[in-house]
Amino acid sequence: MQQSCRQALLLSSSNCHTYSLLEFAKNEICSFLNRNDVKTLLFIPYAQNNYDTYTARIKEAIGPWGYEVTGIHTYSNPVDAINNAKAVFIGGGNTFLLLKKLYDNNLVEIIRQKVNDGSLLYMGSSAGTNVATKSIHTTNDMPIIYPPSFDAINLVPFNINPHYIDMNMETHMGETRDQRIKEYLEMPYACPVLGLKEGSILHVNKNSLIIKGVAGAFLFQKEKKTEYPVGADVSFLLN
Amino acid sequence: MQQSCRQALLLSSSNCHTYSLLEFAKNEICSFLNRNDVKTLLFIPYAQNNYDTYTARIKEAIGPWGYEVTGIHTYSNPVDAINNAKAVFIGGGNTFLLLKKLYDNNLVEIIRQKVNDGSLLYMGSSAGTNVATKSIHTTNDMPIIYPPSFDAINLVPFNINPHYIDMNMETHMGETRDQRIKEYLEMPYACPVLGLKEGSILHVNKNSLIIKGVAGAFLFQKEKKTEYPVGADVSFLLN
Repeated sequence: MQQSCRQALLLSSSNCHTYSLLEFAKNEICSFLNRNDVKTLLFIPYAQNNYDTYTARIKEAIGPWGYEVTGIHTYSNPVDAINNAKAVFIGGGNTFLLLKKLYDNNLVEIIRQKVNDGSLLYMGSSAGTNVATKSIHTTNDMPIIYPPSFDAINLVPFNINPHYIDMNMETHMGETRDQRIKEYLEMPYACPVLGLKEGSILHVNKNSLIIKGVAGAFLFQKEKKTEYPVGADVSFLLN
Repeated sequence: MQQSCRQALLLSSSNCHTYSLLEFAKNEICSFLNRNDVKTLLFIPYAQNNYDTYTARIKEAIGPWGYEVTGIHTYSNPVDAINNAKAVFIGGGNTFLLLKKLYDNNLVEIIRQKVNDGSLLYMGSSAGTNVATKSIHTTNDMPIIYPPSFDAINLVPFNINPHYIDMNMETHMGETRDQRIKEYLEMPYACPVLGLKEGSILHVNKNSLIIKGVAGAFLFQKEKKTEYPVGADVSFLLN
C-alpha cells in the first residue's frame, strides 16, 4: 500500500465551553497552517443554510490570526476552487446536508484524492469532521435530507462521534449516546468509533494520529470502550 | 379525496418513567384493540437485532392483558403475515434499521394500503411511530444503516419527533433538540413536526387526531412552537 501524504486537523466542534469560536484550537490551527506555509483557507459552509453569514463568522474568528478565508460558494466552479486551494476548512452544522452538497458538487472524490496526495490540507469541525471519516453512520445529527450515500470522504478508516459526552444524560428519554454507538457496532460493516469530547482535536499526519486540543477521546470497539487523553498516540487506528 | 379508514395508536416510547414496559399505555391499547374485537397482535421487531428476545419481552408485557402476540419473523412470508393480520405493532429501536427492513420485505406499501382501507390496525412505539409518519427526517436515531429512502409509511401527513424533551440539555454539547427540529423545518419540503413527550400517545381515528396517554406534545412549525396537553384535539394536522 502506498503511504498517504494526508494531513488533517479534525475538531470535535468549533465551540468549546469558556472559549470564543475556534479559540481552543488556535495554536493547533496556526502551527498546522504555518508548518505548511499556508496563508489562505477555502471555507466550505455547506453544513448550514446561510453561506455568507457562516463564512463571515469564520473569517471574523480566524482572520485576526493572519489568514485569509474565502467561501467556496463565491467561486463559480467549486471543483476548480478545490483544485486551486492549498487548505480547506469544512465547518459544522448538519452532516446530512453537508454530505449531500459535497456529492451534488462532485467534491467527495477530489478532496479525498488531493488530501491523500498531499496537495491539500484538510481541516474539519463537527459535521466537517464526520465527513472526513469512513462514513457518517455515527453522526448525532437529524437526517433532514437524503444523501446519495452514507459513505464519506474516507481520509481515515474509522468513524467519529463528535460532541461526545461520557454520561448517560438521556436516561428515560430515549437511548444514551453509548447505546446508539453500540447499535452501530453491531452492524456487520462497522468500523471502530472514536468519540471526540468537545475541545478534542485529532491530528492526522501521514500515518501518525495524535489526540490534541483541550479534551480527550473514547474509542468504541465491539464490547470495549477505552479512554485516550490529550497527547495519546492512536496511530494504530490508521492501519 | 376519499376518507381514510385508518386507525392507529402512536406511542412516543414503550417505556415511561415509573411505569413498567408499555404499562402507561395499557388502557389505550386495550380499548383500541377491544373496540375492534382484536385479540391477536402481529409484532414487528425489525428495529432491533434480536427478534426472538424482543418479541418475548413484548409478549410478556401484553400477554397478561389477554392478547396473543406473534413475531412477524416467525412467518415464512412477511407479506402474507400482514395480509392475514388484524393488528400490527411495530416496536422501537433504530429507525433506520426498521425502515430498511420494512422496504427489504416489501411491507411499506402494503401496510399503508391496509391501514388506510381499514383492514389493519396500526400500533407503533418510538421508531415504530416514526415510520408511521410522512418521513423519518425527524428521528433521534443514529443512521447506522442506509435505507432506500427516508419516506415512510405516511399514515399521517406530518412528522413526529419521539422522546421529545422540552429543555436545552445539550448546551455546550452540540445542538439542542429544538435547533435540530428547526434545521429540518428550514428544508423546502418540511412538514409540521409533533414532538411527543415520553408517555404521550397519538390516537388516529379516521380524520380525528387526539393526544392521549400521560404526557402532551409540542407542535413545531416554521417560527412557531405550540404546546398541546393530553386530551387536545389536533385533527387539523390531518388536513
